Amino acid sequence: MAITTLNIPIERAEVSKIEQVDFDNLSFGSVFTDHMLVCDYKDGQWEPPKIIPYQAISLEPSAKIFHYGQSIFEGMKAYKDSEGQVWLFRPLDNFKRLNISANRMAIPELPEEYFMEGLKTLVKLDAQWIPQKEGSSLYVRPFVFASGKGFHASPADEYKFLICLAPSGSYFSGKVKVLIEEKYSRAANGGVGYAKAGGNYAGQFYPTQLAIRKGYNQVIWTDDHAHEFIEEAGAMNIFVRIGDTLITAPTSDRILDGITRKSVLDIARDEGIPVEVRKISVSEVVEAAKNGSLKEMFGAGTAAVISPIAGFGFKEVDYELPEIEDSYASRLKKRITDIQFNRSEDKFGWRYKV
Amino acid sequence: MAITTLNIPIERAEVSKIEQVDFDNLSFGSVFTDHMLVCDYKDGQWEPPKIIPYQAISLEPSAKIFHYGQSIFEGMKAYKDSEGQVWLFRPLDNFKRLNISANRMAIPELPEEYFMEGLKTLVKLDAQWIPQKEGSSLYVRPFVFASGKGFHASPADEYKFLICLAPSGSYFSGKVKVLIEEKYSRAANGGVGYAKAGGNYAGQFYPTQLAIRKGYNQVIWTDDHAHEFIEEAGAMNIFVRIGDTLITAPTSDRILDGITRKSVLDIARDEGIPVEVRKISVSEVVEAAKNGSLKEMFGAGTAAVISPIAGFGFKEVDYELPEIEDSYASRLKKRITDIQFNRSEDKFGWRYKV
Ligand SMILES: Cc1ncc(COP(=O)(O)O)c(C=O)c1O
Ligand SMILES: Cc1ncc(COP(=O)(O)O)c(C=O)c1O
Repeated sequence: MAITTLNIPIERAEVSKIEQVDFDNLSFGSVFTDHMLVCDYKDGQWEPPKIIPYQAISLEPSAKIFHYGQSIFEGMKAYKDSEGQVWLFRPLDNFKRLNISANRMAIPELPEEYFMEGLKTLVKLDAQWIPQKEGSSLYVRPFVFASGKGFHASPADEYKFLICLAPSGSYFSGKVKVLIEEKYSRAANGGVGYAKAGGNYAGQFYPTQLAIRKGYNQVIWTDDHAHEFIEEAGAMNIFVRIGDTLITAPTSDRILDGITRKSVLDIARDEGIPVEVRKISVSEVVEAAKNGSLKEMFGAGTAAVISPIAGFGFKEVDYELPEIEDSYASRLKKRITDIQFNRSEDKFGWRYKV
Repeated sequence: MAITTLNIPIERAEVSKIEQVDFDNLSFGSVFTDHMLVCDYKDGQWEPPKIIPYQAISLEPSAKIFHYGQSIFEGMKAYKDSEGQVWLFRPLDNFKRLNISANRMAIPELPEEYFMEGLKTLVKLDAQWIPQKEGSSLYVRPFVFASGKGFHASPADEYKFLICLAPSGSYFSGKVKVLIEEKYSRAANGGVGYAKAGGNYAGQFYPTQLAIRKGYNQVIWTDDHAHEFIEEAGAMNIFVRIGDTLITAPTSDRILDGITRKSVLDIARDEGIPVEVRKISVSEVVEAAKNGSLKEMFGAGTAAVISPIAGFGFKEVDYELPEIEDSYASRLKKRITDIQFNRSEDKFGWRYKV
């Protein structure tokens, strides 16, 4: 672990809001802790971060975030073990991905120390906000947006980096029904799909609303050329089990390189599960559903953890997935959450003590 | 003109900033007038707009604009004629396009009256800010963004619609050199390219920076499948003149349906110029450049008006365009600006008196 000389100044909230929170009935990402980290980019550099009470931000109407969508974010969770120790899961990977997103969106890269030390200091400060109910966690949201001014479609000269914390319940309630998309698309070849950029999400809302109206929870995105191959879901990478083989699409410039996805791949291999990382055609999945070899589908992501998919729709036909004893989804979910909550050995070195 | 009962309340700025502005040296979109229009969407409906002094906006860090890129905008100009009368150009088309963008980005549609009456009232109020120097104008920026809260990738429940005004000089200084893109893309089939959505612009910044470093001003986007066909530029539709024929790409779900583009098409037809709206392959343009039949290329958009292109790069080769007497670009620019500034007859009915 790096020795740091960074001392992040903390301005404490005068009164804590924690007593107002019903920790037994948390929804996802709608309650926020007492503090937040802020860090400004000005005059060509990131200024040192500071921690202040959670509060509103004041911006000029001409700030570029309002006009040109220059924004990126990350999503992580902080976990508390039975002894009250606090853990993060592979946070350096989130940091690296934030800077990959930053590059693609012409946002200046963040220094590692500002991110990592800021994260640790903030999570430590608000550690009493980490829910301990099974299925709940403290969702950690680092984000960067263009605060620089001007109605000119060009990168801003000022940015803000913040980290906010939200004690959260589970992302989906119950099993998920998905629609395999055949008209709309999430990402272009050579586009920004691999970046965790704001605009990638807004673009999904309308097609997802259409799917929700038809009775689905989520859209599974396919390539924009012929809607032939399965890519990913709104905020999850997608795994398919055909026979005993676990398959997921390779990452590309259209797909987010999910940290849960790559952890699942490592754990599955470790479990001796046959794994394939290759293109998955929709027709292969439909065929497998018809002949009974499609045993499971699930989504994998920080927010949703591992979310079993109960069925999917494609071209106006619904396909149900069987209920499976000892499913890959539940085995893999147990392995990954046991590591996250410090209930098991951490053979991959993913746990990060706060 | 519709009879309206809408009476937009105006809170006037106590002191005007107009004396501080150097109207002879305006850049584009970096000085703002004394007032702005604001309108809030809450509890399932748009509240009536009001006009207030230009001022900062306060937002929660969890406002969805910062995370999920749910934002759309329009770009228009207000013109003052030699008698001091104020004009807009086809503003109803901007209103309609704003709602097309709103639908795609899952933003609630705006009522026509709020947009049109708000626009007129604001432009009238700040009419003394309209520059009268040739090439300058008052840039009008209506925009809508998600102010509703939550770290959940779903449409917000609250929005803000604003109109701000910026007295502006020309968008480009001098002739434009463009790079025909062969790696990055602006839009996906089935994506949001036809919407004036924030994220479409941020995604262009990085490839545009690369092009600028190579000595170009702008990228010309091509299809994301094979980079075979010319689509549009950052904030302009593209026209190509081969021999005496003026050609532009058809609109699609990847291309913004530009108001300048369709006006140019109408004027060109009216001028007796042979016009084709069809796919333009890059190889056709390169071939025409080589054999001398490529006479002109220009961009068309509200901000840039009509911007002649001096040359283009493709696959590491630069192609220069000839200097043309009586170019289509200059003829069409004169026709359109004469209509906009009330210097000529308005046979198409495009001018709109404020
Ligand atoms: C588009 C998209 N795909 C996949 C994921 C899963 O990535 P991770 O496992 O790193 O959370 C996310 C969420 O973070 C996402 O937004
Ligand atoms: C991507 C894009 N294409 C084209 C245009 C030109 O459209 P209009 O002529 O309506 O301004 C614009 C600018 O408004 C634009 O942003």
